[in-house]
Amino acid sequence: MIILGIDPGLAISGYGVLNYVGNKFEVVDYGAVITGSSEVFPSRLKKIYDSYTELFKLYKPEAVAIEELFYNKNVKTAIAVAEARGVHLLAAENLNIPLYEYTPLQIKQGIVGYGRAEKKQVQEMVKVILHLESIPKPDDVADGLAAAICHAHSLKFADQFKILKY
Amino acid sequence: MIILGIDPGLAISGYGVLNYVGNKFEVVDYGAVITGSSEVFPSRLKKIYDSYTELFKLYKPEAVAIEELFYNKNVKTAIAVAEARGVHLLAAENLNIPLYEYTPLQIKQGIVGYGRAEKKQVQEMVKVILHLESIPKPDDVADGLAAAICHAHSLKFADQFKILKY
Repeated sequence: MIILGIDPGLAISGYGVLNYVGNKFEVVDYGAVITGSSEVFPSRLKKIYDSYTELFKLYKPEAVAIEELFYNKNVKTAIAVAEARGVHLLAAENLNIPLYEYTPLQIKQGIVGYGRAEKKQVQEMVKVILHLESIPKPDDVADGLAAAICHAHSLKFADQFKILKY
Repeated sequence: MIILGIDPGLAISGYGVLNYVGNKFEVVDYGAVITGSSEVFPSRLKKIYDSYTELFKLYKPEAVAIEELFYNKNVKTAIAVAEARGVHLLAAENLNIPLYEYTPLQIKQGIVGYGRAEKKQVQEMVKVILHLESIPKPDDVADGLAAAICHAHSLKFADQFKILKY
């Protein structure tokens, strides 16, 4: 099954597309949608929406796994990122693709096995699991791949995992 | 000119459509887009997006005036509302309609004349300015109309006002 994982963002939105067959991963694509702060805000939203609509149409994922917003201290930033995250969700919904949401903790658990793993460990595991030569950059890309892996593992351990389906 | 004002929200998104000609307002339409908490989140976003796309196509506003997110203590709620606000912006952007953002303070200033006005005063003024028989309910609808009035007044006093154009 094709799983498209997303680490949503406004400036950088990382994604990874995996084909998960018989407990094995095939890396289909990964990358990032980047918008600049010099662009006006609604244009940035449109760019994100259009880019994901294109990716969804191209890869026809059976599931989109998206990371839950990590709320940090800067409320203004969190609000802007949330506005951007909304259009990621809309792009999937408009194409009727099932959406699954995972917290950063669940993604760590789903990959490294415990929720307190360091970011670096998660990224190393993404590299190892997917047989990549190096950790994809920027971090958001590796995190998008991590979300996709997490979803695949959640399917496997559906009884142990609480799958957050909308 | 047709101005469509929005008080964006997830559960209730209020809007008002005004025709502003020669310093006079003609009320074209007002109402609310309502989504229920029993609906799944991406469907709620889609409903909001589709409803505003329809309203924009119907009334062809020359400007959309949207209230800035009022951040309250509940971060989880603010994030969800921000995700919803993002799809309001996208709907306008996808139809190339110029977007103007106003803070609650600016809207109060633009209507009552000072920024510390009470919510009730703003709503009374909306009723008076638009010659309505009663204050439109729920509050979000009156706030949507207020955003539209504020934008019209901002045009008039553009030199005194800082217009927040994206």
